[in-house]
Amino acid sequence: MMKNLLAQRANPDVTSALSGLFPTDTHPDAISFAAGSPRESLFPVKEMQRAFHDAIDQQGAHLFQYQTAQGNPELRAKLAARIGKWGQVVTTADNVVLTVGGQQAIELVAKALLDPGDEVAVEVPTYVGALAAFDLYQPTYHAVGLQADGLDLDQLEETLRQHPGIKLLYTVPDYHNPTGITMSVAKRRQLVDLANRYDFVILEDSPYRDLGYVQSPLPAIKSFDTQGRVVFVSSMSKILMPALRTGWLVADGDLLAAIMKVRFGSDLETTGVTHAAINVFMEENDLDAHVNVLKNHYREQCAAMVAALQADFPDEVDFTTPQGGFFDWVTLPAGIDTGKLLANQIIPQAHVSYVPGTNFYPNRDSHNGLRLCFTGMTPDEIAVGMKRLGDQVKAAVRETRPVF
Amino acid sequence: MMKNLLAQRANPDVTSALSGLFPTDTHPDAISFAAGSPRESLFPVKEMQRAFHDAIDQQGAHLFQYQTAQGNPELRAKLAARIGKWGQVVTTADNVVLTVGGQQAIELVAKALLDPGDEVAVEVPTYVGALAAFDLYQPTYHAVGLQADGLDLDQLEETLRQHPGIKLLYTVPDYHNPTGITMSVAKRRQLVDLANRYDFVILEDSPYRDLGYVQSPLPAIKSFDTQGRVVFVSSMSKILMPALRTGWLVADGDLLAAIMKVRFGSDLETTGVTHAAINVFMEENDLDAHVNVLKNHYREQCAAMVAALQADFPDEVDFTTPQGGFFDWVTLPAGIDTGKLLANQIIPQAHVSYVPGTNFYPNRDSHNGLRLCFTGMTPDEIAVGMKRLGDQVKAAVRETRPVF
Repeated sequence: MMKNLLAQRANPDVTSALSGLFPTDTHPDAISFAAGSPRESLFPVKEMQRAFHDAIDQQGAHLFQYQTAQGNPELRAKLAARIGKWGQVVTTADNVVLTVGGQQAIELVAKALLDPGDEVAVEVPTYVGALAAFDLYQPTYHAVGLQADGLDLDQLEETLRQHPGIKLLYTVPDYHNPTGITMSVAKRRQLVDLANRYDFVILEDSPYRDLGYVQSPLPAIKSFDTQGRVVFVSSMSKILMPALRTGWLVADGDLLAAIMKVRFGSDLETTGVTHAAINVFMEENDLDAHVNVLKNHYREQCAAMVAALQADFPDEVDFTTPQGGFFDWVTLPAGIDTGKLLANQIIPQAHVSYVPGTNFYPNRDSHNGLRLCFTGMTPDEIAVGMKRLGDQVKAAVRETRPVF
Repeated sequence: MMKNLLAQRANPDVTSALSGLFPTDTHPDAISFAAGSPRESLFPVKEMQRAFHDAIDQQGAHLFQYQTAQGNPELRAKLAARIGKWGQVVTTADNVVLTVGGQQAIELVAKALLDPGDEVAVEVPTYVGALAAFDLYQPTYHAVGLQADGLDLDQLEETLRQHPGIKLLYTVPDYHNPTGITMSVAKRRQLVDLANRYDFVILEDSPYRDLGYVQSPLPAIKSFDTQGRVVFVSSMSKILMPALRTGWLVADGDLLAAIMKVRFGSDLETTGVTHAAINVFMEENDLDAHVNVLKNHYREQCAAMVAALQADFPDEVDFTTPQGGFFDWVTLPAGIDTGKLLANQIIPQAHVSYVPGTNFYPNRDSHNGLRLCFTGMTPDEIAVGMKRLGDQVKAAVRETRPVF
């Protein structure tokens, strides 16, 4: 009834990238590799409880008053130092903005840059939440492929030559969502060169950069930025806890000013109490030590999943071998639609779930990929679930083989 | 350098409604009636500290995991019951969405409804934050005047006749920001009739409704809604504490679906930890009793400001007499620009500040009003500040009088 009053971006006939993303399966034996959630049993609950208590003790009533649009200055200083140490980004607290998770940071960048029809380049597959944020501002998408060492820069340059109006490139360089791929240092440097030459902004979304299971974090793309055209985004959701809803971005100059300008009208400021608690948590605890605990667990879970992919899946299936992060990407033979397969066979028969790949493509034009998340379960649970999934995939692949 | 890449909404040459809104004055004797902040000394700090502790004890790690896009179901149920009791709105937890303050709720409604150029009616003067949110979606504004009993409905209907494409009307019916005016019950009912006849959405923004110093809260406009075309918005910022950043909205049907659709891409969900703490706070404490404490203080502060306006201000000045909320609105003679007066004379000479009225008008075309907030200071401080302000206003008014 009210549909004629809605904005085009809210048109109910256009499927939202995120709605219905996570299949539900209430069977008692259900095993989910779908949601990209960190493992709850590793959350530092008591430490964070104490941090809330101590932050309130330290600051009293003032902690609960309106604060600043950029967010808690002490936490911003710590995050600036942290990305300096681990990402070689030379920056200051004044360049850091606290946001509602990394998601709001992505949305604010889109809001600051995109008029309807503006051109955006994204690697494919890519993070669905970024597509959901960009979709709000009705861009024209250009898809650029991924290679084992990250974004295909030759393809990107060809795309830029054909579409010199491209304003924004979105990339997840570290332990990419959904594929687990990491961009090489050489490519990071070359990407900034391309941005300088073709005059576009790079949105570097890096929530998983601390969670490498083989090597230390690489220099951020932002570390090669000399013209203030890279916005770096990260989050506490994966290395601490999601419900703190604390992400952050690093930006400079005109871009920072534009982001702050659109931020006022969006929500004024974010949750001062939780920012203060995170700041106290980082004073009372060693965040890097906590991250090492996470890495020791996730490394085993990642290895269990890769082992199962090797042992239990048919030869026709390709998969990535991530060196960090949360995800594995699996490619089935071209004729198989992983969404239909999940709904019609795998959930009803095996009670295992994943995220079908279609939603990770801006034009929803690829259907045979799927994302697996290995962080939610123990290695034993992963082995059980992957065996069940592998058997289903084998059956599906068998049906695609020629009879003679 | 990067300006050519920005979206129109982020154009740095267009003044943002909220930036520079609050004058700064670091003089030791400075008294500010500018920011609309609640009084910190009344915050229930120990009770909220305990609520955070107990919420974490009760739910443990799960409290910190990704939750739901609409927010904590128990808190939503309590808010639905609360607006039922105090605003006669019959609704359910399923119709409530938790947001980053009331500000995000306003922004989500704008995002769900407005394409560039769409027509929006606002009462003038109106809340600057709402203008900042609407500005992001580049609407065409229609200004409708206020009367002592709220929006001028005759003027609104005339505007609707001339501009039948108006999609959205924004109003603050209870203890209006910035004027303190309250809309009569009869007008609330008539406004819904107009919305039904002229097919528009009403955004009812009511963060002050609990803070009436004379009477109980009136039925919400939403209580007269039979077609799902009113979105009710409120917040915990004014009755509890701002840094919890917890607002909420009530919506139905297509509108609710559209709001949730644009919400996913905006920030996924808001801060689960603070929602749980507020929920526990409302179980461990009597929120209505706390609101009564606030009202007893603010009532005296409001009376002190009105008394000072009567005693210390010249006859040429008009002002409202609020029966609740945070604000008084003062109208100086037409020739006086309250922004220039503040910057050039009042702050340098008297160290008192207010918010100049211009920013409360979507077309920035009225300059002789000003907003005073009485909640931040004691009655004695109010008396001192208002005497200083009144002397300055007298001097300014004297200059506008004809010499002969």
